[in-house]
Amino acid sequence: MDVTKLASGLDTVWVVLTAAMILLMEGGFALLEAGFVRQKNAVSIIMKVFVDIAFGALIYYIFGFALMYGKDAGGWIGTSGFFLKGDLSHIDLSISHETYWLFQCAFVIAVISIVSGAVAERVSFRAYILYAIAMTGLIYPAAGHWIWGSGGWLGRLGMIDFAGSAAIHALGGFAALAAAIQIGPRIGKFNPDGSANIVPPSNLPLASVGAFILWFGWFGFNSGSTLSASNGAIGHIAVTTMLAASAGGAGCIVFTMMRYRKADPPSVINGALAGLVGITAGCAYVSDAAAIAIGIVCGIAMVLATEFLESRRVDDPVGAFAVHGVSGSLGTLAVGLFAQPGRIQEAGHAGLLYGGDWRLLGIQLLGLAVVAVWGFGLTWIALKGINAIVPIRVSRDEELIGLDVGSHGVPAYSQDQDFIEWSRVKP
Amino acid sequence: MDVTKLASGLDTVWVVLTAAMILLMEGGFALLEAGFVRQKNAVSIIMKVFVDIAFGALIYYIFGFALMYGKDAGGWIGTSGFFLKGDLSHIDLSISHETYWLFQCAFVIAVISIVSGAVAERVSFRAYILYAIAMTGLIYPAAGHWIWGSGGWLGRLGMIDFAGSAAIHALGGFAALAAAIQIGPRIGKFNPDGSANIVPPSNLPLASVGAFILWFGWFGFNSGSTLSASNGAIGHIAVTTMLAASAGGAGCIVFTMMRYRKADPPSVINGALAGLVGITAGCAYVSDAAAIAIGIVCGIAMVLATEFLESRRVDDPVGAFAVHGVSGSLGTLAVGLFAQPGRIQEAGHAGLLYGGDWRLLGIQLLGLAVVAVWGFGLTWIALKGINAIVPIRVSRDEELIGLDVGSHGVPAYSQDQDFIEWSRVKP
Amino acid sequence: MDVTKLASGLDTVWVVLTAAMILLMEGGFALLEAGFVRQKNAVSIIMKVFVDIAFGALIYYIFGFALMYGKDAGGWIGTSGFFLKGDLSHIDLSISHETYWLFQCAFVIAVISIVSGAVAERVSFRAYILYAIAMTGLIYPAAGHWIWGSGGWLGRLGMIDFAGSAAIHALGGFAALAAAIQIGPRIGKFNPDGSANIVPPSNLPLASVGAFILWFGWFGFNSGSTLSASNGAIGHIAVTTMLAASAGGAGCIVFTMMRYRKADPPSVINGALAGLVGITAGCAYVSDAAAIAIGIVCGIAMVLATEFLESRRVDDPVGAFAVHGVSGSLGTLAVGLFAQPGRIQEAGHAGLLYGGDWRLLGIQLLGLAVVAVWGFGLTWIALKGINAIVPIRVSRDEELIGLDVGSHGVPAYSQDQDFIEWSRVKP
Repeated sequence: MDVTKLASGLDTVWVVLTAAMILLMEGGFALLEAGFVRQKNAVSIIMKVFVDIAFGALIYYIFGFALMYGKDAGGWIGTSGFFLKGDLSHIDLSISHETYWLFQCAFVIAVISIVSGAVAERVSFRAYILYAIAMTGLIYPAAGHWIWGSGGWLGRLGMIDFAGSAAIHALGGFAALAAAIQIGPRIGKFNPDGSANIVPPSNLPLASVGAFILWFGWFGFNSGSTLSASNGAIGHIAVTTMLAASAGGAGCIVFTMMRYRKADPPSVINGALAGLVGITAGCAYVSDAAAIAIGIVCGIAMVLATEFLESRRVDDPVGAFAVHGVSGSLGTLAVGLFAQPGRIQEAGHAGLLYGGDWRLLGIQLLGLAVVAVWGFGLTWIALKGINAIVPIRVSRDEELIGLDVGSHGVPAYSQDQDFIEWSRVKP
Repeated sequence: MDVTKLASGLDTVWVVLTAAMILLMEGGFALLEAGFVRQKNAVSIIMKVFVDIAFGALIYYIFGFALMYGKDAGGWIGTSGFFLKGDLSHIDLSISHETYWLFQCAFVIAVISIVSGAVAERVSFRAYILYAIAMTGLIYPAAGHWIWGSGGWLGRLGMIDFAGSAAIHALGGFAALAAAIQIGPRIGKFNPDGSANIVPPSNLPLASVGAFILWFGWFGFNSGSTLSASNGAIGHIAVTTMLAASAGGAGCIVFTMMRYRKADPPSVINGALAGLVGITAGCAYVSDAAAIAIGIVCGIAMVLATEFLESRRVDDPVGAFAVHGVSGSLGTLAVGLFAQPGRIQEAGHAGLLYGGDWRLLGIQLLGLAVVAVWGFGLTWIALKGINAIVPIRVSRDEELIGLDVGSHGVPAYSQDQDFIEWSRVKP
Repeated sequence: MDVTKLASGLDTVWVVLTAAMILLMEGGFALLEAGFVRQKNAVSIIMKVFVDIAFGALIYYIFGFALMYGKDAGGWIGTSGFFLKGDLSHIDLSISHETYWLFQCAFVIAVISIVSGAVAERVSFRAYILYAIAMTGLIYPAAGHWIWGSGGWLGRLGMIDFAGSAAIHALGGFAALAAAIQIGPRIGKFNPDGSANIVPPSNLPLASVGAFILWFGWFGFNSGSTLSASNGAIGHIAVTTMLAASAGGAGCIVFTMMRYRKADPPSVINGALAGLVGITAGCAYVSDAAAIAIGIVCGIAMVLATEFLESRRVDDPVGAFAVHGVSGSLGTLAVGLFAQPGRIQEAGHAGLLYGGDWRLLGIQLLGLAVVAVWGFGLTWIALKGINAIVPIRVSRDEELIGLDVGSHGVPAYSQDQDFIEWSRVKP
């Protein structure tokens, strides 16, 4: 038995298993979103998750991956690897290009799933498919190339984003914000005087278990991003991931008990997720204590951001921007504060609080700004364009009936009416 | 540290982890089936999954494994390894026989779980236990021996079935068909004029997350079937698995939008599963493009098969035959078309479209026919025999009340009636 | 590539992956408990699981781990490793101390989650947080040190508890019993004549899938406790785990069919879990046949214990004591009967039925008694103390309304009332 072959085998199973864990996160997203929305839209939001994973994987296979990780052109875009063919020799890993693709594919599906929550309960299914193609085929691959692609300009500047607080979560979060604003609030969410009504989640147990599945998958997300089992940081990454998530959850429990006099379940669920999002950029580079601080700050910021959005009459049904946009941003910047010199390989890189200068924080801020503007702007443009072809919002009647019966002809939950002819049109 | 020991340790954790993933698929089957049936039968179908995993594992430990993987007798049956004892020296792997058993045990449980869906909402619990014993103790082990057992006659002929499109899914699917036909349709499913009524699924969010869990487990199912982390095909297997599943889901989204004017959630759920079933035989041997083609064809075929069964007044509540029987068959044959010479080790083996001759396709067809006839026939006989002891169908009253309360004395879902004395008979 | 580094990398990914599987068990606990309690308390019990994982991890990081695995003081307590700092050189593993902490952290969270079920539907949220801190910060770390800590007095005596039938499950189970007794039965559970009313579980499909997730996680729990992929026992551990679980489930199916004339779903769910709890101490040391025997005995004992507790008017809503306390005890003692000399490394250690003398059984009994008294006693004292600060039981009104709306201001399940202003107090 050859040791190099053994090491390659180990890295392969590590990446395949963690990729599978990330893909299971789609089940987590489906449960989280189905639990947070109203019953009448629970299936429709899950169908969007199916779009994410089905169309997302195919589009990323055909050209998304090539644009992101193909041979660099000017720091802006990849140009090889369509259908995983062509010159990919610049990707020099112990795992095969196919295995690498699978892991990256799990990432792109997560990005688009972030957006699905923000437009829940009112987006047209056809329009959503078109947007999902735009996001997984261009918007994310381009931004991803700048940060992670070989030769990408933000990466060359020294931007650090280990597993994607910026590339995945801030991008997805700002895209979600643009989508939520452009599509407008759900009917009845805001009163004429501007005050907001609370939409009680239809199924909090489902939403909770969705969060636990996401938490599980995040160990794959962050630890798996080493792409090699020989990477000595794996244990540390898993620990900072755990601590930030727990701190986000505990922080939200305490904070909502103080602020609302009650531990608020949706906030606690999202608070743990906010901690996970926040640690994603720095999980390999910050200390345990910093991870806890990041978790607490992101959890509390999520609650405040949720309130702020409501006060601005932006309707984001599952808190996609508050969780992914805000915590993704904070996590990206936190690297500039907390990165420890010993954990970062490259010279000259250290967080401001750990002996570094303002340079890293500045680069992080620049990268974040670029990603936020790109994610928001391109999504705005894409939806405007799509709206000219297929209206992005369903009709008022369909929204009131609910998208499950309205768009898909079947309710999420059926009582024991024995046999009813549903509206599925048979040939 | 000895390298050979290290390699064996790696292979062991790989197989144990993937076996655990496959066993988690039972949770996926439980959710899928509980979500697809009516509320009044949701617990009863889950109890059958418990039978699968509890009795299935014990029976397979006592004698099923021995009949399948024991020392060969004439190509027909294994004869050693009862209670994992006796001569198993012909199984020459880097993992222990126990570890190998665990992985195979996860497979047998999957087979019987396929059948449970087809007889849902009307099968007697006691009769089902007896059938589960027959399936896990004899029907599957025999067919499995022919294909996968050391010296099995179909395997010696050159039949290729990497992770079981034929041995698992076609066998289970044709058994499900026999069971569904013999037990007859649910009361009220078909009108006197022969037209079918649609039974709306009771809980589509549960069914959906069941599909996501199955999808996750399938990475264990297919990639884990290498039984060794040093197998260079693991990454490719995971990628073809992913692409076929996404293609099945995307194919069904597009196809049902064209055919029914609405993306039909149950079809999309089953379409992704159909893609997974279809790629199971060839995941290690076909190209990415072939995987996509297999996924699309299996997804669409599943929709058409579902319609066809209904038109023939066969009532298969969760689509077990349409998903596992049809896609398992197509996937088995697809190997004969798409197998790439470079990926198949044995000389002379290649798919018809990749430079091979008709031989491989012919062998695949023969093997499939054998498995289908055996699965259908033995199930038919077993159920006839069981029916003479315990009627396989519950009484009309029990079916109308629902099997949850009728057979198990407790409903799946209870409202907040505070305390009610249920019909559980205390001693 | 250095072989030692490769081995360490392999051990690290093994432990991180199995730790993640154990952490996913929190999702299993959440579903199991939310499914077993009434609708009006489904969110509140899940919020307690969030407390377990959020506060549990932080407390265990700050001082619980140090007390358990720090430098030994007199066999009684650990004294280093607060915040994972200080001298931990006595922990000599191929994985980092951080990775080791993550795995142990997953364990402590499981312990406290056991207790949450016993006090469901009536415990105050604030009081529960305080108790969770006591359990994860002191009660469990102390007992754990005695058994597993370097220099712990029970471990030095020769007590054997591979993955924690005693340290985790018996401790948690007896703590759950103390808590259930002290807090008293739910309003209406017992009639004035002492007879018990059955509270139908609100959502058995959720409870079932919780059990499947726990089953999955248990492969991580038991196999992962090797802490090294090179440990030759991994395959055997996984197989005994599987067989005991299946035997527990199958045993309960048969036993309840005889006793209640119906296979009782809650008993079957808990029976499989009882088998898992029972095998946890001996999974590495007993034979396959012993594993099956342990599973059957634990499953049946769980049913009888449930009945016994009801007859004594102790209200344990999810059966925490019957599952974890009873099976944990039986499993601990079973090691004294069934441990095979060849599987135990230390000389002189063997079960009574495998050529050993009474010594091992005596030590197991002593250890079990110590853990049971400690878990019960300290929990009793802790709850008495907490009750002086925050009443541990909610008000009668709040209990009748349900803790979801009463304590957390939101129901678990909402129908499609479009927008309702819930009682969440906004600033």
